[in-house]
Amino acid sequence: MKIVIAPDAFKESLTAKEVAQAIQTGFTRVFPEAEFELIPMADGGEGTVQSLIDGTGGHLQKASVISPLALPTEAIWGLSGDKKLAMIEMSAASGLHLVPTDRRNPLYTTSFGTGELIKAALNAGVESILLGIGGSATNDAGVGMLQALGAKFINKSGKEIGFGGLELLNINHIDLSQLDPRLQQVQIEVACDVTNPLCGKNGASAVFGPQKGATPSMVKQLDQALSHFAGIVQTQYHLNIADRSGSGAAGGMGAGLQLLPNVQLKSGVEIVIGATQLAKKVQTADLVITGEGRMDAQSIAGKTPIGVANVAKQFGKPVIAIVGCLSDDYSLVYQHGIDAVFPIIRQLGSLEQTLSQGQENLVSSAENIARLWKICSQFPK
Amino acid sequence: MKIVIAPDAFKESLTAKEVAQAIQTGFTRVFPEAEFELIPMADGGEGTVQSLIDGTGGHLQKASVISPLALPTEAIWGLSGDKKLAMIEMSAASGLHLVPTDRRNPLYTTSFGTGELIKAALNAGVESILLGIGGSATNDAGVGMLQALGAKFINKSGKEIGFGGLELLNINHIDLSQLDPRLQQVQIEVACDVTNPLCGKNGASAVFGPQKGATPSMVKQLDQALSHFAGIVQTQYHLNIADRSGSGAAGGMGAGLQLLPNVQLKSGVEIVIGATQLAKKVQTADLVITGEGRMDAQSIAGKTPIGVANVAKQFGKPVIAIVGCLSDDYSLVYQHGIDAVFPIIRQLGSLEQTLSQGQENLVSSAENIARLWKICSQFPK
Repeated sequence: MKIVIAPDAFKESLTAKEVAQAIQTGFTRVFPEAEFELIPMADGGEGTVQSLIDGTGGHLQKASVISPLALPTEAIWGLSGDKKLAMIEMSAASGLHLVPTDRRNPLYTTSFGTGELIKAALNAGVESILLGIGGSATNDAGVGMLQALGAKFINKSGKEIGFGGLELLNINHIDLSQLDPRLQQVQIEVACDVTNPLCGKNGASAVFGPQKGATPSMVKQLDQALSHFAGIVQTQYHLNIADRSGSGAAGGMGAGLQLLPNVQLKSGVEIVIGATQLAKKVQTADLVITGEGRMDAQSIAGKTPIGVANVAKQFGKPVIAIVGCLSDDYSLVYQHGIDAVFPIIRQLGSLEQTLSQGQENLVSSAENIARLWKICSQFPK
Repeated sequence: MKIVIAPDAFKESLTAKEVAQAIQTGFTRVFPEAEFELIPMADGGEGTVQSLIDGTGGHLQKASVISPLALPTEAIWGLSGDKKLAMIEMSAASGLHLVPTDRRNPLYTTSFGTGELIKAALNAGVESILLGIGGSATNDAGVGMLQALGAKFINKSGKEIGFGGLELLNINHIDLSQLDPRLQQVQIEVACDVTNPLCGKNGASAVFGPQKGATPSMVKQLDQALSHFAGIVQTQYHLNIADRSGSGAAGGMGAGLQLLPNVQLKSGVEIVIGATQLAKKVQTADLVITGEGRMDAQSIAGKTPIGVANVAKQFGKPVIAIVGCLSDDYSLVYQHGIDAVFPIIRQLGSLEQTLSQGQENLVSSAENIARLWKICSQFPK
């Protein structure tokens, strides 16, 4: 019996690797001879780098970069065990958590640090880069990131513009001639689960600006700045970067990335599924177990268990989900490849208690699922 | 596929019948063609009468009796659908809840009302009586109960003694000649899960007296009174009612009952198992599902799921338990016939919320267990 265990992390409680190990522990009590393949998963958001490091035998790396406020800081990124793949989260260098609440102002914050992380990955000689773009503090269309990689954004006076979303209004023309040439040799997959365009009422500034500190008047300025930038790109490169689904992700990072070669926007879980070679491993499995901290109707939209289930169902494999908790509206997941789902809470308690018992509860749930599987498989047909 | 569903009640949330129905609902979603046998169970304690009424198609009955304080009150009991079986809970007539906290004093409380309930059952023409003896307010060795059924307890002056544990000290001799003759024709099964003797440091007065309102000096008096009563029985009938396992149950009710013909002390769940003909129904089942509100290491000792599992295992049937919550020490149940156990809590919330979602959570758990069973049974061997 071969069991693939491919869960997401249980946020605030266990990493995806720990979840997978706990499930294995429970199953091993019942099926000590089973073959287990542990594949820590993620959905492109928080925890993705850790899961991919765990899943590829990789290591955390550190890089000196600048923060959204252009202050020096250190940011982490992940390098796979075979050193061919870099895993970068934009928030590590350009995240909202790096800006004190009273200084959050996307007119001035820059994504430059994320470009520096990409550069660090290029320096390490990787063949591909996975880039998660959630949680950014910026609204600069990724112009800061492009600057770090050698792009020049020139104003009317022939000088380079400064940092921040507002500066985009000053762009007169773009010069990509000094873009890091190594980018030609590298595939960049961007984990992007939002579909917002760059501008307008569903655009980056209007939808995500306020949570980054933008007032209504700043939203207006920023939206104009993004629109101005997209106009220049349209004129210079005959490229419409504004209207593509996902262009508005991460303060317009989804748009700016389109100026780099070999960039693909994908759903986060799809990227992780590719990077972990999930399909190949599932193909020979008898049973696939996935899970996440909280399963609800939202789980349909680009979250890990459904992504895993989709792959498993391509090969007709049964899929069980083990979850931290299960909302009232969860039953939609049955229509998306999850055959059965089990919450792990054993008794009421405070959130802290319950989170701290996560591992124990998981082992116990997995054991009982395995026990049920065993008695059923011994059942005469 | 035939599925026997034999759970206890989930106390404060669902009756055993409601639990069984919810489990059936969940299973039916997956196995609409399955045959279900619903057997509401109980362990002899609270909820037993309701479960047996539900399980036998019976009805609640009312009887006018006296309370432990000898005040007129009404008490309920159960009559099976075929009118052959009465189900009585001592606490209905002689329970602690019938005595205001400030009047709890087992020197004076009487079990007379329980005798009146037995009489009501005799009046209804039953063939057997199941008597649950938990939760009593009395410490009178069941002498009140015996008085209601015609026994005379005579003092030195040739007069009948009064009510209450203290009065036992005045017994000079016992006259059973006027005991209701119908008792000869009726089997009485007493649900008794404690093993305490009548007297001494593990006796009725010392162990259960304090929770009924006895002070240390009352405990001493009551213990002497029980001992005096047992001595009279020994002398008159050459019968040792004091030392038997369970004699100390319910303020010595376990001892006094031994003066009636055809009385058997059994574990509560054993009685319920007999009354519901569980073994016969399990024999043809493919799967047995049980459950209770809270499963823990205590569940081993005479609680419903283990009783059900023991019966199921006599016939080699798989047993799944579905429970309201599951304590840390539950895993002992695996050694007692439970193959797998699933708690139903889907998310953290207040106790009230969680109890109110009991039915929904049960249906959901049962559905997922059935789903797992189904995918496993479709699995190539």
